[in-house]
Amino acid sequence: MSAPGTVYGVGLGPGDIDLMSVRSDRLIRNARYVAFFRKKGRPGQARRIVEGMLPDGVVEIPMEYPVTTEIPLSDPRYNEILSAFYAECRAKLRALADAGEDIVVLCEGDPFFYGSFMHLYTRLKDDIPVQVVPAITGMSGAWTATGAPITWGDDVLSVLMGTLPQDELISHMKAADALVIMKIGRNIDKVRDALRVAGRYDAAWLVEFATMPNQTVTKLSAAEGKVTPYFSIIVVHGQGRRP
Amino acid sequence: MSAPGTVYGVGLGPGDIDLMSVRSDRLIRNARYVAFFRKKGRPGQARRIVEGMLPDGVVEIPMEYPVTTEIPLSDPRYNEILSAFYAECRAKLRALADAGEDIVVLCEGDPFFYGSFMHLYTRLKDDIPVQVVPAITGMSGAWTATGAPITWGDDVLSVLMGTLPQDELISHMKAADALVIMKIGRNIDKVRDALRVAGRYDAAWLVEFATMPNQTVTKLSAAEGKVTPYFSIIVVHGQGRRP
Ligand SMILES: C[S@@+](CC[C@H](N)C(=O)[O-])C[C@H]1O[C@@H](n2cnc3c(N)ncnc32)[C@H](O)[C@@H]1O
Ligand SMILES: C[S@@+](CC[C@H](N)C(=O)[O-])C[C@H]1O[C@@H](n2cnc3c(N)ncnc32)[C@H](O)[C@@H]1O
Repeated sequence: MSAPGTVYGVGLGPGDIDLMSVRSDRLIRNARYVAFFRKKGRPGQARRIVEGMLPDGVVEIPMEYPVTTEIPLSDPRYNEILSAFYAECRAKLRALADAGEDIVVLCEGDPFFYGSFMHLYTRLKDDIPVQVVPAITGMSGAWTATGAPITWGDDVLSVLMGTLPQDELISHMKAADALVIMKIGRNIDKVRDALRVAGRYDAAWLVEFATMPNQTVTKLSAAEGKVTPYFSIIVVHGQGRRP
Repeated sequence: MSAPGTVYGVGLGPGDIDLMSVRSDRLIRNARYVAFFRKKGRPGQARRIVEGMLPDGVVEIPMEYPVTTEIPLSDPRYNEILSAFYAECRAKLRALADAGEDIVVLCEGDPFFYGSFMHLYTRLKDDIPVQVVPAITGMSGAWTATGAPITWGDDVLSVLMGTLPQDELISHMKAADALVIMKIGRNIDKVRDALRVAGRYDAAWLVEFATMPNQTVTKLSAAEGKVTPYFSIIVVHGQGRRP
């Protein structure tokens, strides 16, 4: 029996392939098996990012979410369905690794930062070799796009998900100096209101598709009524101590 | 008169050059002028990271801090001395750029995330072309080194500096799900005590020199009495919702 293959959780960074690490770039360009999550019927953002980088003869393994937004997070079926899905993905990658094959799993941004790969990682790491390649986060791409530093001196940065209850959003928005808000989408109105109550609305920037060809950067207040895509991040810069 | 050169604030990532972006790698390997901050009499961490990457004939511009830790942050002379220093660095880079030369400024981690380059950036950006290349942060290197994801679901991540007053440390440590603590050094005892009061001490990990050859990863509680170097990060993982 051959030695088991390795599953590589490869961070792609925010989108521009020139911002991928030298290691991720090398692993992707030499991959034999490439797996990635996507919503059924969609090309998938991770797969789209590596378009043109995959070598001839690569085997692609799309892992298609059975649900993402159709069932509310609070519904117990949500967790059951996702658990079954991850178990199936795990079995697929496990079988390949047991046969001695290395598999590259494409991860948007940094794999260990709110990433889907983490759900596979915890299910594989005790049985087969798994290596994680960190990457530039979407938020680094976003604050760089605004043209202003995110944190100075001893500023506190809090990273908040738009899916949080509004009162929690407000208290964290009040307490921190710098803010990053992700997973906005249909939560945009709740997030806007929370920023207003916390007195941070006028200082907020909206970055869509950071570092991608369709990137936009606007003051949030200038984007009233706009529908925000999944790939968007709100940034409020810290103003900390500085000489 | 020729067009002005560009100042590139180039993020190096956490230390392992294989984790540098393709763009940073290319800019550094083709640089004619490379500037970097360091403490007088020290090689400088940023310069050390790129050892072996600089092309023949490159001109190195060390920018040596007049003070860093000798004068307390609260002393008004601290800001005056640093301001004069940044003005001097600015003049040097400005003169080169005006003569049409491009300059690569080496930045540890991501330039816009608590970076020294930001002080040059704000002083140069209105006069000459400045481009910032984001990078993997030290904290991404650190949480990847712990082998566990930092944030899940709608976890709140707060990034705290060890230089904060203890009561502020405690309240943020209580409020967030996941924690990253940087700039620890001589603040280690204050940070330890704050983590204890907030009930997060036993879950804390200490990562020194993340992704560098001398990397260490230990439970913070297993490192009692240890002197922590400047390049160390404390990580407390979130435990958020997960299927
Ligand atoms: C499941 S999280 C994954 C985060 C990713 N692992 C990272 O390190 O950035 C998805 C969220 O990331 C944010 N995001 C990631 N990359 C982005 C980009 N290039 N532009 C805008 N938002 C991005 C969006 O807020 C999106 O809702
Ligand atoms: C002035 S801040 C610069 C942060 C940097 N711009 C970044 O993106 O990580 C310096 C602090 O970064 C942290 N740091 C950066 N890289 C690190 C690494 N590779 N290992 C441990 N700590 C690191 C340490 O806490 C250090 O005190």
